Amino acid sequence: MDGLIMDYQLTIDKMIKRANRVFPDKEIVSVLPSGAKHRYTYSDLYRRTVRLMNVLRGLGVGRGHRVATFMWNDYRHLELYFAIPSLGAVTHTLNIRLFSEQLSYIVNHAEDMVIFADATLLGPLEEIAPQLKSVRQYVVVSEEGKMPETSLSPLADYETLMADAEDDEDFPELSETDACGLCYTSGTTGKPKGALYSHRGIYVHTLMAGMVDMLGIGERDVLLPVVPMFHANAWSAPFICAMVGAKLVYAGQNVQPEALVPLMQEEGVTFAMGVPTIWSGMLQHLRQTGGNLGRVKKLVVGGSSVPRAMIEAFKREHGIDIIHAWGMTEMSPLGSLNRLLGKMEDWPEDRQFGALSRVGKPAPCVEMKIVDDAGRELPWDGRSSGELLVRGPTVIRSYYKNAEAADQFTDDGWFRTGDVVTIDENALLQITDRTKDLIKSGGEWISSVEMENAIMACPGVMEAAVVARPDAKWDERPVAFVVRQPDADPPQPEQIIAHLRNHFAKWQLPAPADIRFIEHIPRTSVGKFDKKVLRSQLA
Amino acid sequence: MDGLIMDYQLTIDKMIKRANRVFPDKEIVSVLPSGAKHRYTYSDLYRRTVRLMNVLRGLGVGRGHRVATFMWNDYRHLELYFAIPSLGAVTHTLNIRLFSEQLSYIVNHAEDMVIFADATLLGPLEEIAPQLKSVRQYVVVSEEGKMPETSLSPLADYETLMADAEDDEDFPELSETDACGLCYTSGTTGKPKGALYSHRGIYVHTLMAGMVDMLGIGERDVLLPVVPMFHANAWSAPFICAMVGAKLVYAGQNVQPEALVPLMQEEGVTFAMGVPTIWSGMLQHLRQTGGNLGRVKKLVVGGSSVPRAMIEAFKREHGIDIIHAWGMTEMSPLGSLNRLLGKMEDWPEDRQFGALSRVGKPAPCVEMKIVDDAGRELPWDGRSSGELLVRGPTVIRSYYKNAEAADQFTDDGWFRTGDVVTIDENALLQITDRTKDLIKSGGEWISSVEMENAIMACPGVMEAAVVARPDAKWDERPVAFVVRQPDADPPQPEQIIAHLRNHFAKWQLPAPADIRFIEHIPRTSVGKFDKKVLRSQLA
Repeated sequence: MDGLIMDYQLTIDKMIKRANRVFPDKEIVSVLPSGAKHRYTYSDLYRRTVRLMNVLRGLGVGRGHRVATFMWNDYRHLELYFAIPSLGAVTHTLNIRLFSEQLSYIVNHAEDMVIFADATLLGPLEEIAPQLKSVRQYVVVSEEGKMPETSLSPLADYETLMADAEDDEDFPELSETDACGLCYTSGTTGKPKGALYSHRGIYVHTLMAGMVDMLGIGERDVLLPVVPMFHANAWSAPFICAMVGAKLVYAGQNVQPEALVPLMQEEGVTFAMGVPTIWSGMLQHLRQTGGNLGRVKKLVVGGSSVPRAMIEAFKREHGIDIIHAWGMTEMSPLGSLNRLLGKMEDWPEDRQFGALSRVGKPAPCVEMKIVDDAGRELPWDGRSSGELLVRGPTVIRSYYKNAEAADQFTDDGWFRTGDVVTIDENALLQITDRTKDLIKSGGEWISSVEMENAIMACPGVMEAAVVARPDAKWDERPVAFVVRQPDADPPQPEQIIAHLRNHFAKWQLPAPADIRFIEHIPRTSVGKFDKKVLRSQLA
Repeated sequence: MDGLIMDYQLTIDKMIKRANRVFPDKEIVSVLPSGAKHRYTYSDLYRRTVRLMNVLRGLGVGRGHRVATFMWNDYRHLELYFAIPSLGAVTHTLNIRLFSEQLSYIVNHAEDMVIFADATLLGPLEEIAPQLKSVRQYVVVSEEGKMPETSLSPLADYETLMADAEDDEDFPELSETDACGLCYTSGTTGKPKGALYSHRGIYVHTLMAGMVDMLGIGERDVLLPVVPMFHANAWSAPFICAMVGAKLVYAGQNVQPEALVPLMQEEGVTFAMGVPTIWSGMLQHLRQTGGNLGRVKKLVVGGSSVPRAMIEAFKREHGIDIIHAWGMTEMSPLGSLNRLLGKMEDWPEDRQFGALSRVGKPAPCVEMKIVDDAGRELPWDGRSSGELLVRGPTVIRSYYKNAEAADQFTDDGWFRTGDVVTIDENALLQITDRTKDLIKSGGEWISSVEMENAIMACPGVMEAAVVARPDAKWDERPVAFVVRQPDADPPQPEQIIAHLRNHFAKWQLPAPADIRFIEHIPRTSVGKFDKKVLRSQLA
């Protein structure tokens, strides 16, 4: 049949071209490590993106190559967000908070060819550099443009490369099914797993994110994404802002309330996004100082569960709507957002806050179902609880080079989220548990299984089970239930923690009081640790 | 490279499944010919869509077959909007205002297999039925469910077929590049041209339409699409409402202000869409009656140019934002929408209204450029005027079975809109003229070339040129400049109009006062009629 619609490829280069064409004078503001502000426009971003594409070409980067970033949120990270995929290469955002073992595993698994790193973040890279097998070039990004003292080699300076590059516009023809981005998520097996994104997935996700009941960002918004750019496509912020022409504000390294409040006021921020820990700290700060957030109207909060008290407090004390969101790295990442429904407009506030504490309705392109252990579908009645399965044009179809994780995908095309959920008659999703018992602290994962294994490797320990305890500041912290070996020299909490330092980042370590010695670990009928019982002991 | 995103097909069946799953109890309200209201929910719509798919199967409709509708706006038209494409067939929406010659040409060109028609609209079909070559079945849709007296044969009754059908859910696997819809647009050659839509184009268009600065419809909105459902995908209303769960209100046959005002108030309409003629009439009515539009906050107005005075009046007298939109049947249809930009928020109202009178920024998925006669690209400076070229994932790549119109598509993948435009430094589009001199009356096209040819075929006429004159109610009306043959019995306006009745619908005919006799028609240097001179005589 002739006729039909243009075979137009949905690729990321089109977003930055659009921003340059349609919103050339809209601003991007970045706070630098010194605290100074850098500001330029989407047309500047476009010109620098074109130049950076030529820098990358000069470094030998081509179609399909992985290029890593190890950076805070700022305009140069944004330039990489557009230049790498526009060249047909893959942006691999490295989590700057990872422990070195995970970091080197990830870089080697991804076979990153080049790593772009902030000058303030070279330490962790220097430590793992001897183990990295694929990296041919480090590029340092510094405020002053000076080469720092470092063992990383070969090393180039970002701005020197940029100054030397041509500014010819040379965009290759891309296919929308080309890979464009890569992000690893921690797993219980101890091996992080990679989610490889396609241009098409990101493009469709961007349109979806811009819809009214999703992020709903428009040209008149000023967005501050407190969420790090190494988190799951920065929750779409770079893409949606370029597409709709919203002003972007990056806070850089300092995301303390003392720094964010004046930034939000000075730049007229209307909209911010981040994990609950950020906003609980902010709320305390505003109460202590009597301050306010200026023009801010909405906060999208996700990454872990948002306490109802926080939603109420922001609304009552500041008139700000907290929009509770849920997503996964594997989903690009948006899965659901919670907006007040038409039928709830007349509800008393108390009942509204109850509804808003759930994580919302499925996003427009995301299909969901709940299944029991036997794979049978469960009803959306708010009571039936089972594992959440999802599918859609923004969900990965497998992990990158990871055949072992194939069981997270069903034969008929669904992704097993590992989350245990209910969905009520209003189609509002509630996350009730996790199938894999990960601990989420300050928006980051801690693998309970990894920690158990490490503790059990400690002299004098027989067995150990790690579960999460709720924490007002960090959302969750790990608690280790430890059974000591009889007849052995009994290890003390400090010794166990010292042992864990070899395997975990400092922020992941349990506090001494969270190492609890017990006689035996309760087990289920099939002999597995019964973590439900342990959790109930904590409650 | 493994990993990557699911190969998930963007098809229309997923929209109605989503509406059923996520928004089952949201309402669809339709005013019937009697004035009675029909109301049901998205879950009812879904169940009826499933049943209607089985009706269509029973009529022999399968993949790729064209099924026509000849109907007003109501819930049964909506059922067809989802059932036909969900079956893999093609919804061909027929314009109920077309003259019979065009109508029979279109049905035959599309090779429609079945026509669904409202009982109140059988007359025009009876007239052309003897000429229709492909139609195997007529289905009448009536309020009472009674078979009317008609010569159409074979004829079935919609509700009888529905009552007899199975309600098994049987959705075939579709490809997103399958055709799903067909709509013809009038051309100056006299042959209407077909735009054939794909599932993917409609799906991407729907996401785009839901973005904040586009239609921006959310779950809490109540939409009244006054625009007919036979106009270019009903401006996306059925799809966007199903996707976001907005309540839909259909006015049926009567779109007079006297009927619309109480409907909008009773159903809590927040948002309406239609051509300028509707809203200029509405404004007059509200002034005369002192009435108001209840909860309405926004009107999307497109199809022809919106006078600035109307934008000002709705804002000042009713606090309602008129959103000026531009699009084309060939573009699915949205091309641009005008929303106040951040930089304009501090402008004086007068300057704001000036900016809002343009037709807005290019839609997120639509690329635009302006070219001169030699195909050279022109700057976006608000002065340089040339033909607008567009491309994107929602734009047709050719007309359906129409090799003659191939010159409207460039070799490098752009569609020539035929509109002469400027784009200013804020990327705001302004339509300044049409390359093909069509006349747009009440949102419908009248071909000036066709009318000229018909007049010149009238006894006693030597030559004739038809141009548009501005009209407060209809936007434009045709004016015919006629040169009478010397020595002939001079024809009177009434005789010319009587002659035109054979070729044009009643609403297309010029008024007697708009037949103007002149000595000769001004011509350009290459011998063509100089319509600019004629227009300036009218001004």
